[in-house]
Amino acid sequence: MSEKARRFVLASRPVGEPKESDLRMEEMALPAPGAGEVLLRTLYLSLDPYMRGRMSDAKSYAAPVPVGGVMEGGTVSEVLASNNPAFAVGDIVLGRTGWQTHTVSDGSALRKVDPSLAPISTALGVLGMPGMTAYAGLLEVGKPKAGETLVVAAASGAVGSVVGQIAKLKGLRAVGIAGGPDKCRYVKDVLGFDECIDHRAPDLPARLAAACPNGIDVYFENVGGHVLDAVLPLLNTFARVPICGTIAHYNDTAPPPGPDKLPAVWRMILTKRLTVQGLLVSDFGALHGDFLRDMAQWVKDGRVKYREDIVDGFENAPRALIGLLRGENFGKLLVRVAERSK
Amino acid sequence: MSEKARRFVLASRPVGEPKESDLRMEEMALPAPGAGEVLLRTLYLSLDPYMRGRMSDAKSYAAPVPVGGVMEGGTVSEVLASNNPAFAVGDIVLGRTGWQTHTVSDGSALRKVDPSLAPISTALGVLGMPGMTAYAGLLEVGKPKAGETLVVAAASGAVGSVVGQIAKLKGLRAVGIAGGPDKCRYVKDVLGFDECIDHRAPDLPARLAAACPNGIDVYFENVGGHVLDAVLPLLNTFARVPICGTIAHYNDTAPPPGPDKLPAVWRMILTKRLTVQGLLVSDFGALHGDFLRDMAQWVKDGRVKYREDIVDGFENAPRALIGLLRGENFGKLLVRVAERSK
Repeated sequence: MSEKARRFVLASRPVGEPKESDLRMEEMALPAPGAGEVLLRTLYLSLDPYMRGRMSDAKSYAAPVPVGGVMEGGTVSEVLASNNPAFAVGDIVLGRTGWQTHTVSDGSALRKVDPSLAPISTALGVLGMPGMTAYAGLLEVGKPKAGETLVVAAASGAVGSVVGQIAKLKGLRAVGIAGGPDKCRYVKDVLGFDECIDHRAPDLPARLAAACPNGIDVYFENVGGHVLDAVLPLLNTFARVPICGTIAHYNDTAPPPGPDKLPAVWRMILTKRLTVQGLLVSDFGALHGDFLRDMAQWVKDGRVKYREDIVDGFENAPRALIGLLRGENFGKLLVRVAERSK
Repeated sequence: MSEKARRFVLASRPVGEPKESDLRMEEMALPAPGAGEVLLRTLYLSLDPYMRGRMSDAKSYAAPVPVGGVMEGGTVSEVLASNNPAFAVGDIVLGRTGWQTHTVSDGSALRKVDPSLAPISTALGVLGMPGMTAYAGLLEVGKPKAGETLVVAAASGAVGSVVGQIAKLKGLRAVGIAGGPDKCRYVKDVLGFDECIDHRAPDLPARLAAACPNGIDVYFENVGGHVLDAVLPLLNTFARVPICGTIAHYNDTAPPPGPDKLPAVWRMILTKRLTVQGLLVSDFGALHGDFLRDMAQWVKDGRVKYREDIVDGFENAPRALIGLLRGENFGKLLVRVAERSK
């Protein structure tokens, strides 16, 4: 086997928007599994907004990737060789094996994926971390009630698309916000949101207000920035704001210029008795069984739809991540690293 | 009876800090109670930070006082004359009769105060709205757990003093923040907080950090401003931030200059999975019976102490309110409008 292994390491911490040169590809001989270990070949690498945080050494909920270290990431892989009785050659597994084409693992952090249930890539999307984030964040933190109005940005993305569709299943009015007319059309016509507003077109506040005649009861926060500015005046008394991400600010190199909006927002939280609460999917492990049961059924019934944006070729991962932070992807962004061996 | 009635009406909406001339005293003949009505003489008028909000026409949870209208406020009064069989002359009642020396009421919004239980002024303080705010806000929103650390500002005030003492009763470390060494000494030595930090002395962040070696699990927010800036970096994962007030900003005429701190705080809510939640005492009516039972017992046992700052003379109410917004009061601020008969 003359196949080589490749990986991307963090070459330097980005300042502002990452550059391709902040990541460096390295090539090496294929690693060999030791006793009790398996050798994996990555099929799909998931690209997600949180990765920008791992490239930075600003204090966060997880340690940063060290400079020179392999970039973190969720993957779906196949077992190429196995010295572990729990895994057979050809098994498909979900893991956090990072930006590399091959990995040796003792198997303890792997979960088998059943290819007969759904396309294996969905283990990184609607049936994986983004789907679970939407499910737990909306149901546990957003506490949606039938008849209420939900707003979610990045509405064609991996998390936002699921948030809005679950909201519809629960009897809410779902209003999406997305970048550009194509995404908005998809969110409304295919995903079945009641409305979708293009945040790149002028006069976002007035168009959002028109789409939310009864105000907003749940704002599922993925973005921050000018979308948040448009949402805040529309929040109803006792509205809930689960904060899942603030992607508009991930490339900020300094706090934005003034005025300082914090005091007015703090006072609004008081006067409207808002609940603003941060969430990480890892806090909701106890809900994972419910999630898999519900979501697999919803996907099977066609009640939750999903869209994947698949980039071919491991070498294209850095450029694709930069595009993700610009909102260039359309659907759950994945890198197809290798074809599955029959 | 040649006694005259007096009242304060809002003469003009304040710009920034209220001026005495923003309130105007009016004098009139004593009103006469009609059928089913009572005539009240105000004994104590409560002065509270929320009153600044009612002087402004900025959007809030309650309608503003109209220009020319009587200023709102909670009072303890005695019944001077009664055409209502539910009230006898001499009865002491709690009401929201506003800044006036006499009121005619149909009795429907009055609650009798039992003078044998506690000094009648406490119906406006530790056994009234501020005490209930502290009780509901800390227990229902703050969700305190033994062994955690609570921080509260305005710690010698009507709400903050009760928040910290309940926290101690529940087994938390209680750290107060107050303005000046006298208040800090009182908070620590009399109220029994573990520490109290003077926010007027230099280097608040470092001194607060030293007082909270295990970080902060509950920050009961009364103030905002530079106290909030010092608190934020110390908040622990899953900390709760009940927002009860933001007095540092009530006299702001415009958002403070930048940089804009909102994006960084929004991201911190995410990464630390904070819960930031606004509260108004009026949302917790169902808890009022529990509150009265618990708090009356705690006060009787000396486990909750209180301090009143009593200003004599109705005509001094405007000056006293201005002082309250500057932090000049020391304890629950009340205006003694009249002595109780007999």
